[in-house]
Amino acid sequence: MKSICSFLKIRFLIACLAVLGLASLGFAQQSLPSWNDGAARQAIESFVERVTTPGSADFVAPAERIAVFDNDGTLWSEQPMYVQLAFALDRVKALAAEHPEWKEQAPFKAVLAGDLKGVAAAGERGLMELVMATHAGMTTEEFERIVKEWLSTARHPVYQRPYTECVYQPMRELLEYLRAHQFKTYIVSGGGIEFMRPWAEAVYGIPPEQVIGSSIKLKYEVREGRPVLVRLPEVDFIDDKAGKPVGIHRLIGRRPIFAAGNSDGDYEMLEYTTAGSGPRLGVIVHHTDAEREVAYDRASVFGRLDRGLNDAPGKGWILINMKQDWRAVFAK
Amino acid sequence: MKSICSFLKIRFLIACLAVLGLASLGFAQQSLPSWNDGAARQAIESFVERVTTPGSADFVAPAERIAVFDNDGTLWSEQPMYVQLAFALDRVKALAAEHPEWKEQAPFKAVLAGDLKGVAAAGERGLMELVMATHAGMTTEEFERIVKEWLSTARHPVYQRPYTECVYQPMRELLEYLRAHQFKTYIVSGGGIEFMRPWAEAVYGIPPEQVIGSSIKLKYEVREGRPVLVRLPEVDFIDDKAGKPVGIHRLIGRRPIFAAGNSDGDYEMLEYTTAGSGPRLGVIVHHTDAEREVAYDRASVFGRLDRGLNDAPGKGWILINMKQDWRAVFAK
Repeated sequence: MKSICSFLKIRFLIACLAVLGLASLGFAQQSLPSWNDGAARQAIESFVERVTTPGSADFVAPAERIAVFDNDGTLWSEQPMYVQLAFALDRVKALAAEHPEWKEQAPFKAVLAGDLKGVAAAGERGLMELVMATHAGMTTEEFERIVKEWLSTARHPVYQRPYTECVYQPMRELLEYLRAHQFKTYIVSGGGIEFMRPWAEAVYGIPPEQVIGSSIKLKYEVREGRPVLVRLPEVDFIDDKAGKPVGIHRLIGRRPIFAAGNSDGDYEMLEYTTAGSGPRLGVIVHHTDAEREVAYDRASVFGRLDRGLNDAPGKGWILINMKQDWRAVFAK
Repeated sequence: MKSICSFLKIRFLIACLAVLGLASLGFAQQSLPSWNDGAARQAIESFVERVTTPGSADFVAPAERIAVFDNDGTLWSEQPMYVQLAFALDRVKALAAEHPEWKEQAPFKAVLAGDLKGVAAAGERGLMELVMATHAGMTTEEFERIVKEWLSTARHPVYQRPYTECVYQPMRELLEYLRAHQFKTYIVSGGGIEFMRPWAEAVYGIPPEQVIGSSIKLKYEVREGRPVLVRLPEVDFIDDKAGKPVGIHRLIGRRPIFAAGNSDGDYEMLEYTTAGSGPRLGVIVHHTDAEREVAYDRASVFGRLDRGLNDAPGKGWILINMKQDWRAVFAK
């Protein structure tokens, strides 16, 4: 009997190894097919190998493998304007019939006239008025439905396809690659948290609890016996610039070991992430590809990258050169 | 060759089933040994079986299996006072030498004189002064160190052991039991988020990113080249009563399917959780055990349970009768 038991144990162990083997084969297949074999890809792969190799001096326990990603310009296109701004402008038009006063009232008048310069002239305060008029007053469930409906019909003005198809294929692969190596991937965006959550899981594989963003205040109410959360026209938190490390700490409570951004709005997130002890990696998507997307950095209205471009070499942040490093920009 | 391949495939499948079999055996062993076989335990087990049985009408996908737990009085003792209040009082004493003015200044004077009635007389505003004086002004890392140091030396005044050993053993088992069934367990407490995160993982198996609580504002700063988050003496969010569903939505973005509380501070969390569509369970820890812990509900200063006690039967919330339902209260 003893030899049979031993035999079965060995069989069992071999089968377990086979399962593990298949799993690691899966990992290899989930690598980065849309990335050219340049410095950026090598830096990422080398970092991931170091932090995931047991016994390595740089090994990081899976629970501490937190990776944070900006959204606009890092995971999806932010040109010719932020997607959420396009949403707000469309919502003003959709709601105009209920607000006859908007015809004469800035910044709504400019939106309804299609006068983008007029909208811009209204400045930050005008933009906030647009956001509150279109993002507040409803329940969280109603807002989720509005976002989903808009995304199902709206089209990107240049690429003429749904915005959720204007996401960067190499970055999707990077998210998957990190998750296959037991990283927990988060979005940390200046955009609205509730604007991203309804689709981030389907598009990026990032569940609602791993989305961090700007928010307005919520109020708990029981309406006709049904508990709801009502969105109030009051800023709760701006998850941009120095707000990003705060948002990360509020929602995660650990310092990430990997951060990806593309603009100066991500500077503090990159700084906070890479200044931690132990192995860290910060990467910046540099929009260098005028042909397949848009080439922009220091002078751009949306996604301005100036300080980050100056400081990246000194800080050890890796610049991803879209034109050179990416085999494809969008999924076919 | 074909038959050998088939044979190997079958072997492989059997081994996979064996692995799964061992896993489910593990689940069975992780059941609720400190719970007597009463109505509460049965309601919990029946609920978990329904939502985790594939093909069941009540099946819930693992990603949606969100369980939220109050902390004070639900996971650990809140008598004779909230642990965090004991911490604040001890910190006032520890910091008194740096603040000679406190000797003559309410509510600090009362704290230093050991006059708890005087502390209580200072009301909510006085309590807030104590919290800000002891919880703000340092970095998040410094505060974490202070909390850990205090917990390593402080003793519960009645049980004479570390506060982290005054947690309810049956609730720890419940947390494990739910996680073994692919629930994601969260703390949702009126207590400070930063006061709980340093030890929640070791004590409850709940990582920092799954702790929700009250918070003060944070400010990002680079001090001598080192990025830090400084704790400001300003309330950011109160995660209590109607704040709990708001906190849940801010950090999780999904409605839980299971909620456990013990006081009227948990009423809205229970209401919000159990009013969702599909299977839901709300449970209330009712402190009925004067011998092994403290018997309290409607008249208690800490953890008052009045409205919840009235409405539990109508809402279908399960009352856990500590005296009857729990074989043990604390771990031996």
